[in-house]
Amino acid sequence: MNNPTPPKHITLIGVGLIGGSFVLDLKHKGLVTSVTGIDLNRDNLERAIERKVIDVAFNQITTEALAGADLVIIATPVSTLPTVCHQLSDVLDRHSVLIDVGSTKQSAINSFQKYLPHHLPRCIATHPIAGSDRSGALAAQFGLFQDKKLIICPHGQEDTESLNWVSSLWQAVGAQTHQMSASEHDSIFAAVSHLPHVLAYAYVNQIANHPKGQVYFDFAASGFRDFTRIASSHPDIWTDICLENKNSLLALLSGQQAQLARLATMLENGDTDALHRYFEQAKQARDAWAALQ
Amino acid sequence: MNNPTPPKHITLIGVGLIGGSFVLDLKHKGLVTSVTGIDLNRDNLERAIERKVIDVAFNQITTEALAGADLVIIATPVSTLPTVCHQLSDVLDRHSVLIDVGSTKQSAINSFQKYLPHHLPRCIATHPIAGSDRSGALAAQFGLFQDKKLIICPHGQEDTESLNWVSSLWQAVGAQTHQMSASEHDSIFAAVSHLPHVLAYAYVNQIANHPKGQVYFDFAASGFRDFTRIASSHPDIWTDICLENKNSLLALLSGQQAQLARLATMLENGDTDALHRYFEQAKQARDAWAALQ
Repeated sequence: MNNPTPPKHITLIGVGLIGGSFVLDLKHKGLVTSVTGIDLNRDNLERAIERKVIDVAFNQITTEALAGADLVIIATPVSTLPTVCHQLSDVLDRHSVLIDVGSTKQSAINSFQKYLPHHLPRCIATHPIAGSDRSGALAAQFGLFQDKKLIICPHGQEDTESLNWVSSLWQAVGAQTHQMSASEHDSIFAAVSHLPHVLAYAYVNQIANHPKGQVYFDFAASGFRDFTRIASSHPDIWTDICLENKNSLLALLSGQQAQLARLATMLENGDTDALHRYFEQAKQARDAWAALQ
Repeated sequence: MNNPTPPKHITLIGVGLIGGSFVLDLKHKGLVTSVTGIDLNRDNLERAIERKVIDVAFNQITTEALAGADLVIIATPVSTLPTVCHQLSDVLDRHSVLIDVGSTKQSAINSFQKYLPHHLPRCIATHPIAGSDRSGALAAQFGLFQDKKLIICPHGQEDTESLNWVSSLWQAVGAQTHQMSASEHDSIFAAVSHLPHVLAYAYVNQIANHPKGQVYFDFAASGFRDFTRIASSHPDIWTDICLENKNSLLALLSGQQAQLARLATMLENGDTDALHRYFEQAKQARDAWAALQ
């Protein structure tokens, strides 16, 4: 892979784990000379400047904050994309390449198409598969994307040069880039990411709301710890993702209800063989997955 | 704590992760001089001898295998307890203290009471909270119980001396001992251990059975990995546990169904505030738990 043409200047909208880690790595590799950060949270902006994630801070999307940006990264919660793109429509430099890094891609492309129709050749929808239950500028870290997957969802109107350049920047920070349609992306991540998050939240709430919940928590151990880790994820981010991808998620929740009904029937019937087969099948599938990681 | 009176000789029935790790630690600390292992699996017995987990191997419960045991440990899947206790009733030395280490305690005590009524003063139901998705003699390891909880469920007919001695042995390998009734134990562990296991199995099966399941697995990442770790647990062990504790588990499965129905309604209605509060409540409960670990 050739080194990507470096972006001289980046404007990062939403200074958190994902965007912050991306610009940290690009700086570290000499691929960016300066980063302007835009964030509503002034404390977060101060943290980001202290940690040299960004060099200049704004708390609004203004012409000044966007001026001269070779790359603009939208890394705010996914529900804000319509507003952010609407605001950008007045101030985005004609030559800036714009990407988002959100977890739902049909909604991102909808916002690009609706609010930035003339800029579409330079709008690229991307999603780095590198989550964490931590958030904010302090969570930004070097190497977050090394050997992680990065999905690009072409909308059909981007120019090849912009798409390839964005792809090469993500590869430069270690990501393995994949392309797929936004609808395929959204159904895949509803299944392997959004659904487990809501199941973990639902499970923790059941225990927390139980009259003996506090005693239960006292005896929770390592299985509980791992199973519920994603229930510590940020509610703002996940409320948005679930609502933006609610159709896929509702279908999967219904599928999960059907699995639990099957399980309840096997338990009620004391059907040892069926239950064993059910557990065995899950173990084999999970072990096969783990062996490839 | 005074050092416990060492057991000179232990007979371990079921040579796997839990029993194997317990006797390894007791040997290491000089608290046992020899261990007889009983297991149906000859390969497993060979591994256990090679690794010096046990010194002598039998594949049946016989007078010879039980002779002279100061402590007998039943560490077989919980559904086998009736059979094991029944077999022990003919061959157990009068002076042997008998413990089990299974994850369901009402069923263990039922077996003690039914098959070993005259031995009850020396039968102690214990449960070390130290799981793993690995199993078998090769999984046995030093230090597995260090700083882990160990539950003793008195049935009311044990003699104090036996109970205290068993407690001191577990403390000697680093465990923190707690006492509670078997019914309280079973409801707690249905909530914090058995339910998450079946939910993880159900989730993995839903994805594995989906027409696009293999593509989905390709993009599963760290959230998926942790959420599904316990779906790699041994089906034999978990089929047993779930059936032995099915009443508690069915009530909790029904509770989980209710949580998922609530979630689906919030998503269908696009109720951002309710969904956010729901996720926020779960995050706070989970973070509060994690802060105490």
